[in-house]
Order: sequence, then C-alpha cells, then structure tokens
Amino acid sequence: MHFHKKPFQRVIDVSSGDPHRTGMRPLSFARQVLAACLYPELLKDNSFPSDVRQRAQKLLGVCNGGSVGSYSASSCGIPQIQRSIAEFITRRDGGVASDPEDIIFSSGSQTTLMLVLHLMSSGQGPTQAGVLTPLPCPHTLPMLLDEAAIKLIPYQLLEEQGWALELEELQRALRAAKGHCEPRAIYISNPGNPTGHVQDLKTIEGVIRFAASEQLLLLVEEVYQDSVFGQEQKFLSYKKVLFDMGPKYSDKVEMVSFHSISNGILGECGLRGGYMEVINMDPLVKSFLMSMQAPYSPPVLPQLALEIMVNPPSPGDDSHEVYSQVLQRAEIISQNARRGCEFLNNIAGMSCQPVMGGVFLYPSLQLPVEFIQQAEVLGMQADVLYCQKLLEQEGVCLGPGSENGHDDKNFHIRLCVLAPPAVLEDVLQRLSSFHLRIQERHH
Amino acid sequence: MHFHKKPFQRVIDVSSGDPHRTGMRPLSFARQVLAACLYPELLKDNSFPSDVRQRAQKLLGVCNGGSVGSYSASSCGIPQIQRSIAEFITRRDGGVASDPEDIIFSSGSQTTLMLVLHLMSSGQGPTQAGVLTPLPCPHTLPMLLDEAAIKLIPYQLLEEQGWALELEELQRALRAAKGHCEPRAIYISNPGNPTGHVQDLKTIEGVIRFAASEQLLLLVEEVYQDSVFGQEQKFLSYKKVLFDMGPKYSDKVEMVSFHSISNGILGECGLRGGYMEVINMDPLVKSFLMSMQAPYSPPVLPQLALEIMVNPPSPGDDSHEVYSQVLQRAEIISQNARRGCEFLNNIAGMSCQPVMGGVFLYPSLQLPVEFIQQAEVLGMQADVLYCQKLLEQEGVCLGPGSENGHDDKNFHIRLCVLAPPAVLEDVLQRLSSFHLRIQERHH
Ligand SMILES: Cc1ncc(COP(=O)(O)O)c(C=O)c1O
Ligand SMILES: Cc1ncc(COP(=O)(O)O)c(C=O)c1O
Repeated sequence: MHFHKKPFQRVIDVSSGDPHRTGMRPLSFARQVLAACLYPELLKDNSFPSDVRQRAQKLLGVCNGGSVGSYSASSCGIPQIQRSIAEFITRRDGGVASDPEDIIFSSGSQTTLMLVLHLMSSGQGPTQAGVLTPLPCPHTLPMLLDEAAIKLIPYQLLEEQGWALELEELQRALRAAKGHCEPRAIYISNPGNPTGHVQDLKTIEGVIRFAASEQLLLLVEEVYQDSVFGQEQKFLSYKKVLFDMGPKYSDKVEMVSFHSISNGILGECGLRGGYMEVINMDPLVKSFLMSMQAPYSPPVLPQLALEIMVNPPSPGDDSHEVYSQVLQRAEIISQNARRGCEFLNNIAGMSCQPVMGGVFLYPSLQLPVEFIQQAEVLGMQADVLYCQKLLEQEGVCLGPGSENGHDDKNFHIRLCVLAPPAVLEDVLQRLSSFHLRIQERHH
Repeated sequence: MHFHKKPFQRVIDVSSGDPHRTGMRPLSFARQVLAACLYPELLKDNSFPSDVRQRAQKLLGVCNGGSVGSYSASSCGIPQIQRSIAEFITRRDGGVASDPEDIIFSSGSQTTLMLVLHLMSSGQGPTQAGVLTPLPCPHTLPMLLDEAAIKLIPYQLLEEQGWALELEELQRALRAAKGHCEPRAIYISNPGNPTGHVQDLKTIEGVIRFAASEQLLLLVEEVYQDSVFGQEQKFLSYKKVLFDMGPKYSDKVEMVSFHSISNGILGECGLRGGYMEVINMDPLVKSFLMSMQAPYSPPVLPQLALEIMVNPPSPGDDSHEVYSQVLQRAEIISQNARRGCEFLNNIAGMSCQPVMGGVFLYPSLQLPVEFIQQAEVLGMQADVLYCQKLLEQEGVCLGPGSENGHDDKNFHIRLCVLAPPAVLEDVLQRLSSFHLRIQERHH
C-alpha cells in the first residue's frame, strides 16, 4: 500500500467555535470548581485556591443531597441558579429587572433554538412558517431551519458597512416573502456570527419597532456578548433596549435571548449548557419549552458551569491569576481578530471587514475564473472546493461561506479566531501560501 | 407567626431512585476519573490511584483536542464510546453481536423514552396510538404517555405471583383496547420498577412472540440490569432472548432497550446520561431519533460516565478498594431489599412480595375503612393521603401506588431501597410507627 505524505503535521479545524479543540486553555477556576464538585475530597486539603473551594461548597449547597449526582430540584433547573442568572442579566442591563422564572436552562443554545423552531413550525406553501434570517448567518442555522421545515427568508447584511443591518432591507425581505410563506420571527445574531459586527442602539431600536409592528417573535442570539472588542464598542442587549423603549414595546414584543457556556467566557462546548430568557411569551408555549428542554431534570454540572459563567472570578478574588486568565482570553480574541483581519487584507483577492466582536473572521474571496469553472465542472460551490483543497493541501479546515447562506457568486470563508495565537498564525500562513498557489496556477 | 415543631430532624425522600440524595456514596473511581478529565492537572501527581489516571488518560484520548470542553466528534456521540457500549452488550449477552451504530446516546432514559413516545404519537379517538403498559408501572410513565398524547393500555401484573407477567393478560388487554385506540408498542420494565420482579426466559420469549405476531414495538426498560439479587436469579436481556429465537424473530421484531447511568452501578442521576440500543428500527426513524436526542453534539461527561459504567473497575484492577465499593453497593441493595421486605411483612396490614431485583419495594396496604372515607371526603386517593400524612408526621416521603397507575381500591406504597442501610432503617421505623398510629386511631 502507498501513502501520500502530507505536507502538514496535523489538521487544524477553525471552521467553528470550538476553542478547546485548537488548544485554548479552559478557565482553570471553572474546571477546578467543577472537579471539586464531582469529587469533594479535593476540598479537604489546600491544593485548590480558597475561592475555588468556597465556590464549590456554595454550588454543592444548592444541589439536592449536596451531590451533583442527584436530580435537580425542579424540572426547570436549580432555582438558585436561575436566580443567579437573572441577577447577572439585571446587572448587565443596568438594572432592568429579570425574572428567574423567565430563565430556562438549555443543553446548549442550538438545542434550544431547534426546539423553538420546531414549536413555530407549521403550514406548507404560502402558509409555511418563515423566519427572517440574516445573510450571512451562523452556519448551523440553515440546517436547523430546514430540519424544522421552516422557510429561510433572507435579509442581506451590508458588507461594505462592516456587515451592518439596514432596516429598509428587513422591510424589503418581508415584502418579498409575502405570498410565499408566513413570516413568524426575525433572527438576530449580535455580536454577529460570522460577521463580527456589533449592532448599535439605533439599529436595535429599529429592529424592535419592526418586530412590534409586524408582530414577529425576536430570536436573539447573544452568545458572544462577552466578546466585544472594537474601539469604543460595547455590547447592548436587546432586552435592555426593549425595556428602555417603554411599556408600549416591553409589554408586547415577544423575545427569546440565547446564551451559552460554549461561547461565553468559558468556551465549554462539550459540557452542553446555556439558557434562554423568554420575554412576553405565551405561558403555554413557555411551559411546553421547559418540559421539552429538560424533561424531569436538567443536568447538574452544566448548570453549575452557568453559575460560574455569570459570576466569574473578579479582580478582588483570591485567584488573581485566574482573573488574569479572563482578561487574557479577551486580549487574545481581540488581538487575534486584529492580526487576522490585517493579515487577510494584505492577501491579494481577500478582503475582510473590521471586526468588532464575536469569534469569527469572514473575509470575501476573489477566485480566478478558471477555479470557479473547475468547481462548476465538479458540480461544487467554488468556496467549498476552495476549503476542500485547503484542507487536503495544508491541513487547515475553514468554513465555506455557502454554509452561511451566501449565494454562489459572492465567495467568503469563515475562520474562528478563538485559538492560541500561534495556532492562528499557523492557519494564516498556510492559508496565504495556499491562496497564492491558487492565484498563480490560474494566471 | 407560629411554627409547629416537627417531630423529625430532616425529610428523607425515598419515593424515587435518587440514591445520592439519601446519602449513598458515589463510586469514587467514577468521580475521580471524571474530576481528572475535567482538570487534568490532577493527573500530574499520585493523588489518584494509577488505574484512575490510566482511565482518565484513555478517556481524554477519545475527546476532540483531548478536552472534555470540545464538541463530540459526531452528533451521535463519541464513536469509541458507542463501541465500548456495544462490546459491553455483546459480553453481557454471551456473544450476541451489537452494532455500535445501533447505540444512541441519551440524556437519561426518561428523556429518550419521551422522544420515542412523541415520535409514535398520532391520531385521536379510535386511531390514537396506544402503548400496552404494565400495572403497576414506573411512576414517571403515565405522565410521559399523557404528555405524548398516547393512550395507556393497562395490563395487570400478578401480585400473588411476585408481580409476574401473564401472557393471557397481554392478549386480554390488547383485545380490550381494540376499537378504542391503535396499539403500537408494549412497554416492559425488567427488572421491574416498582415491582422488583425479574422475568424468566419463558416469559420473555412469550412477550417477544406476542410482539411479533401483533407487530408491536418493544420498549424495554432495562435500567436495573445490574441490580438483580434474588436467589439463583439472573438478568436476561430481551436482546439476547430475541437473537436466541433465531432470524424469524431477530430480523423482524422492532425493539428499543434503555439503560441509564442514573440506575446502573453509578447512580449518577444528576449527570443525565444513558443510551438506547435500537434494533430493527426504520432507518429514517432512527436518524430522526439521533438528531432530536443530541442535536449537533451530545454532552461529553455523561458519555465518559457511560464508558465507566460499562467498564467498571474489575477485581484485577489497582483500586481494589474501588472494586469492593462495587460489590458493597450490590450487597447493600440486596440486604436492604431483604431487610425491608421482611420488616414490612411483619407490619399488620402490609404485605410485600419477595423482591428479585431493581431498587424498589412495593408493598400493598390495607387501610381502615374510616381512613379511606376520610380521603374520599377530601377528594383524594387514600394512598396519596397516607403518603402525605406520613411526610407531615414523620418526614418520610414515599410514593403512592396511584402514581404507578394502580386504581383506587388496591393501595400500595413505593420506596427505594438504594439508600444507606441506616437511612432505610430510619425510614422503616418511622413508617411502622406511623402505620400503627393510623391503624389504632381508626380502630
Ligand atoms: C450561531 C451559534 N450559536 C451558538 C453556538 C453554540 O451552540 P451551543 O450553545 O449549542 O453549543 C454555535 C456553535 O456552533 C453557533 O454556531
Ligand atoms: C422507570 C424509570 N426508569 C429510569 C429512570 C431513570 O431515568 P433517567 O435515566 O432519565 O435518569 C427513572 C427515574 O426515575 C425511572 O423511574
């Protein structure tokens, strides 16, 4: 048998946000606390810092029988943790109240989103439920909509304006959908996946007014809320803006906001945990969501991880070192994003909008006509062929923009920057030499 | 404000199988391995036994990026763990092959059962889907069926024969259902929850023949398969019997078998993990189940716990002490069951069938006529009133048989014996003094 020798040592997959996979270190505070909750003998000596021990004791105290091995107290989860999350939201939103009963535990934001979509799903042809969906959108979304038999109603984000959302485009998209399906909801990803755009107050207000006047449910993905790093940029939650707009809106607009331990400060994708805050939702729908989401008893450890996410170590805490890990993570993402963006913009035929938040870069790609034709001959999208060849030749796995709902004339690639800087550097170098080869070959 | 002083210090809840809640110690091997997987720094010194360290290394090796924080390799779970489970089943069944692709990870057996029921649900009135259900049945089942809008078709187990299943009764139940609903499946709990009965070969063969001739899906709850302790009693899986019956059956009968880390050797209810083995299932249904069960990525830690459950420490291993915990647990359940059964049979007006497996005792209860009348006046089932008063007066929470689907003339109570012996003793003493009080008061 004959093996082709590959010109690379190992495959690096930065096509999705799975930071530990590329070697980002987990937050040691979180892992120590969870390990101690699993094996409380670890609390008996001083091997863990005192704030770790205190937190573990506190978290064990909210578990039935003081053990992570018992079922949660209620099918909605552990009440004290719902409360911690509500308090976190209230702090984040400068005092806007959050009701613990509106917090529903979720086994990851994608799982929950799918449930909501399944609930919304109905009809066929002109009566089929539809969701206004940004293009580009998170690469998992088209598949989710498809599985739930919901029509994707595209609205274009403006690339030249850093992927901003334009309100007229929402109107246009809605008009275009009329007669083809029944628009039920509008999906927002903010900070944007994969765009890196962070919405401003005016935009959010506009979207909320639009949702109100068209009676659309707002599905707001805010899983990158703690990854905002553009200059003078800060995260504004849809909830805060909604409540600042007064009861005319805050009593009426139905909204679900998603957050997740996969994408927050923890990056714990494998634990599967998140929550949604549901606002103005029909009580029947809400109770159905709860019962489907975690029938009988949600898993305990991801709930404990959520508590850590919403109450991370702070500067005053014992494990200074740990708080510095939190800062370091923020610094790594922001530096990686800047570095990556600059690098890509220096490659001929690539162009990347400035990134204000999130964890992805999403540069556009100019491809030689011959390359595009070659893809056509193979019956493939050119961006898919590009990513496939990149993987074969350089061992780098990026996501093709067509997964993000982009059409086949406008090529993009997606890469996650939540990776150790050296890994990102490696990705960029391999990408650039591959890209140059493609360009030269077809010259 | 005035507080009634309660005559007890703390409430003991033995109404369901949640062993850590009543103070059963978790298997330290499992907890150490999981803690080390979460915080691999723990592997650097010798604080954990060497087999713990080896297992943790091995399990980290099957995680993407060597971290429990990364998404699972596939949406069906971690392939190596599916394989471990299939190997375990093959060993258990004396060589009957198990296909790793038939193993679907589940976030607990109840969650998965609900999905299967939802899938099966259809129709109304005479076309409503129905499931043949033992009486008594697991206390969670009537609620699940109800939520899935599936008709419960009762078949009676024979109390006087230790709650054995009688094949003629299945026939009768099926005939009685004709015209009222569409029987689709038969549910089996073996070892029986709450009966403690363990089915013999002849019964299992009979049920399989019945399912085959009536084209019913077999839903087999085998979560107590490692809790069998009656004399000369051993656990026979439906899968093994099915395959021993030859291709006429094994190529045809649709079956789903459930297992769970909540009830197995680990008793880890809070982690939420289990699996189902699906046999002869329509590929479309199977792939739908997989996608609904763990969309995108099942949680990693419960999968690792499953691996430990199917490969527990063995006598030859380093942590002898740990293996002795495994034996000790088996000994505790069996002694508790024997002790409890004897004790209850010595209480006037109680009668408990000998228990061969599982974790529950399910004695029948003779109640004074006046007590039953009192319950009627209050609009309650007498067994519910009994359990409520027991909780108020003695701080002991048992389950009323009416939750297990028993009708209101035939009273039973349910108690879990998977508890530390001293706790069980306490429960029995409080129960007996309460029971005597009730009997005397109404004399
Ligand atoms: C848009 C989006 N949101 C959230 C997530 C995280 O999902 P979860 O919370 O289910 O891990 C992902 C993961 O790929 C994603 O693509
Ligand atoms: C009949 C039955 N099976 C299994 C379980 C365990 O369920 P799970 O595996 O979802 O924790 C229970 C828990 O109460 C039960 O009553």
